[in-house]
Amino acid sequence: MTVVRMRPRILDRARATVTPTLQRAVARLSGELRLPVEYHFGWRDTDGRPCSAEAGKGVRAALALLSAEAAGAGGDTALPAAAAVELVHAFSLLHDDIVDDDRQRHHRPTVWSVFGVGVGIIAGDALLALAEELLLQTARPEGAVAAARLTEATRAMIAGQAADMAFERRNDVTLEECLAMCGAKTGALLGCAASIGAVLVGAGGDVVDPLRRFGEELGLAFQATDDALGIWGDPERTGKPVWSDLRQGKKTLPVTAALSLGGPEAAELAALLAAGLSTEAEFSRAAALIEACGGREATAELALGGSERAHAVLDEVPAPAGAAEAVAELHDLTDFLLGRDR
Amino acid sequence: MTVVRMRPRILDRARATVTPTLQRAVARLSGELRLPVEYHFGWRDTDGRPCSAEAGKGVRAALALLSAEAAGAGGDTALPAAAAVELVHAFSLLHDDIVDDDRQRHHRPTVWSVFGVGVGIIAGDALLALAEELLLQTARPEGAVAAARLTEATRAMIAGQAADMAFERRNDVTLEECLAMCGAKTGALLGCAASIGAVLVGAGGDVVDPLRRFGEELGLAFQATDDALGIWGDPERTGKPVWSDLRQGKKTLPVTAALSLGGPEAAELAALLAAGLSTEAEFSRAAALIEACGGREATAELALGGSERAHAVLDEVPAPAGAAEAVAELHDLTDFLLGRDR
Repeated sequence: MTVVRMRPRILDRARATVTPTLQRAVARLSGELRLPVEYHFGWRDTDGRPCSAEAGKGVRAALALLSAEAAGAGGDTALPAAAAVELVHAFSLLHDDIVDDDRQRHHRPTVWSVFGVGVGIIAGDALLALAEELLLQTARPEGAVAAARLTEATRAMIAGQAADMAFERRNDVTLEECLAMCGAKTGALLGCAASIGAVLVGAGGDVVDPLRRFGEELGLAFQATDDALGIWGDPERTGKPVWSDLRQGKKTLPVTAALSLGGPEAAELAALLAAGLSTEAEFSRAAALIEACGGREATAELALGGSERAHAVLDEVPAPAGAAEAVAELHDLTDFLLGRDR
Repeated sequence: MTVVRMRPRILDRARATVTPTLQRAVARLSGELRLPVEYHFGWRDTDGRPCSAEAGKGVRAALALLSAEAAGAGGDTALPAAAAVELVHAFSLLHDDIVDDDRQRHHRPTVWSVFGVGVGIIAGDALLALAEELLLQTARPEGAVAAARLTEATRAMIAGQAADMAFERRNDVTLEECLAMCGAKTGALLGCAASIGAVLVGAGGDVVDPLRRFGEELGLAFQATDDALGIWGDPERTGKPVWSDLRQGKKTLPVTAALSLGGPEAAELAALLAAGLSTEAEFSRAAALIEACGGREATAELALGGSERAHAVLDEVPAPAGAAEAVAELHDLTDFLLGRDR
């Protein structure tokens, strides 16, 4: 099943609302780091000329705004939180691109490949510190609680990235291990994004907890969709080089699901992975084997399951009067992310 | 003038007190990241066997403890702050060693050279997040204020590192620019370390502000001493490869001071730097020219000046009764750091 929906308006609204806050925050960076970061966000080209390049959907900022609105507050109150989660996401991308030796993101050369590995590392560091700073400098007493939540989610994300890296050198990664890794690498920050606005406006656990679980389930759906696009997506749409996950030996959901399903194709896939993939023919054969094992279908089911649980847990949020629109937008965003092709 | 004093007892006391807190914090890291970090701290060898390797003086932890004591509180209250500043310092070293392509630190291979660049990046990231977490999870309401101070200092440090990197590609760095860079790269975190314990125990600005300025001045003395050791230190003592600063084109205090002093030797040094140093003979000639220009003496004077101002500003701290011992230990630590040869 594939649900392709129109791009939800919240993504444009979040971009319009959060970008000025993000830009003011980034303007605090020192001269050497500001351009690489502005380039990463698509605001400038490599020479520093203003531009407006596609650079991410801004899902985390949208979630943060909607989480404040779902708690009955104005989205504007959550602006520092929305900017902070986008900064943490950007930090992780800057470093991941170095770790994974990725030279392209959103059809543009990655920061490290333009400005050097050293600048990529240090600029990422600056963004992580800046994210904490934004929350700790809010006038609201809940800023420290939000900062603590963001830090915990960041640590979980980093642990997930470490596991993702370690899995590249293993060929016996189970589906359960892969699911736990995805929960940490992607689910933790999405869970944080989907609840941090509510935290910042002082909502109680009855609102914050289901929003966080919603984000975590959405994270699984998101990662499963991402992993499938990493193998069967159109590089023209995804902006990532073809076969990059397979090339790096990533033990993604389609791969581990395929291996877990057993049978002769799984055995051939395991042998192929153990020998190491390097040619186009091998990547193509591996993708075909993953699909023949049922790994593609299993991944689609994981995405759908995560999405369904995300919808269900959203119905547990005791949204106050006037917050129904925000909850409806969270439902829409969930469907959109499940059906995306980029 | 060189004042070599006995290793102050506070360094051993701080190590004994803070190490258990640090070890408990590091134990929270995921499996893949824990060993590289424990290796960095000298607690394990590359194979994971427990060891006790020399790995830093623990100056920042000592400053944090003493700053709480100088505010009239027990040093134990400052343990999360002391551990947090050491974690931020470790994060910066892990990343700096990658950025600077340094393969040795304290006579041991650096983390990235043992475990890979990817692990070095991600492990550093985890330490930065962990540092914030320690402060945000303290039961004290001042934890959030301390976390904000630490984040600001970390951002300043990162800006200093970015400037340090950018200076490598320039040959017209002035002494003023170099001093500003050192203030950010080293002074900000030492200023934070020397006051964060006082912040955490709730001291007012009359105590916190002079302690921070003390740490900033100490930072200049520290960096000037470090820069001199980087050229004229005994690699057997410093644990760093000979000529590494000159090899990397670092525009350190001795280099920029020498160039600022002018004269024929400065012109020859400038020409040598512009052509690029690569042979032992060139490094040796550059060091001789820096000394002939007066750059070595000027650096020693900068260290002494920073140290004298550090002592003076320490006398402004309105230490309560019972805190005199802590202030005396801060004086001792200042003299020790000025006279060190490693």
